[in-house]
Amino acid sequence: MTTETSLVDSALRTWKQNVDRTSSFFTPLTDEQLLLEVAPGRNRLIYLWGHLAASNDSLLPLLGLGQRLHPELDAAFLTGPDRAVPDTLSAADLKRIWTEIHEALWTGFSGLSASDWLQKHASVSVEDFRLQPHRNRFTVLQSRISHIGYHMGQAVLAPLPR
Amino acid sequence: MTTETSLVDSALRTWKQNVDRTSSFFTPLTDEQLLLEVAPGRNRLIYLWGHLAASNDSLLPLLGLGQRLHPELDAAFLTGPDRAVPDTLSAADLKRIWTEIHEALWTGFSGLSASDWLQKHASVSVEDFRLQPHRNRFTVLQSRISHIGYHMGQAVLAPLPR
Repeated sequence: MTTETSLVDSALRTWKQNVDRTSSFFTPLTDEQLLLEVAPGRNRLIYLWGHLAASNDSLLPLLGLGQRLHPELDAAFLTGPDRAVPDTLSAADLKRIWTEIHEALWTGFSGLSASDWLQKHASVSVEDFRLQPHRNRFTVLQSRISHIGYHMGQAVLAPLPR
Repeated sequence: MTTETSLVDSALRTWKQNVDRTSSFFTPLTDEQLLLEVAPGRNRLIYLWGHLAASNDSLLPLLGLGQRLHPELDAAFLTGPDRAVPDTLSAADLKRIWTEIHEALWTGFSGLSASDWLQKHASVSVEDFRLQPHRNRFTVLQSRISHIGYHMGQAVLAPLPR
């Protein structure tokens, strides 16, 4: 591998590790367990899982990898707080949706070269990108890796049976 | 910037963003506020802050950037759980220590070229690194960025006055 390919490889490994840890944490949970709050009065596990799914699904258009697969997640998990709309998804639904989104992302990520990663993302204008070239796909990937970590740190606080 | 330099720049920006957010969250807190738990029976804020400080301090030798500045943090914040040893550090102490560690890390990081980032870290043997070249400094940086996010996700749950 070249230097630039190896740097991308490091980031993709960390992405995959965070996604895999999230899958391992959430997919064994029952519908009832997903309703637990991470702390009294705070978000429920179902919200954190759906939020990460919706947020990561939005990476598809943001990184120019395709259209959203599950824009229907946003009302319940992205644009408003937990409990803003009634629960409609089961644990099995979320597991399927989570897997679909992350398979599509992995396929998309795998097709990007190191210089592709440095191209602008979809939410920055050509003019702004000229002045702020760090607003690229790779910086988005970095912050989304951290975003998964942020909510996983919360999820593990839920009072699940050990 | 070259492709490889730009990739490193993205990661360093995300590192700095996470460190700055952590500083902004913790440094205004009083000694009393640092004793709040993030959730009932869970870690106190002082532990999370000290834990991130100790963990990041350990990056200095791990990444070959120098000796530990504050190995004395480990007993209270790294090798055991919260409350395992009596509290001895004030908010002012932790702020000074946090700043010292992250200034030293930033100086060290700034001196590494893209190919330096791909060299092995100090906890992997030459033999293992030959077979697993992804066990490099850059992968460590990626996971430590996520580690800050993980504990910041917890810290924001503490019942602080808004």
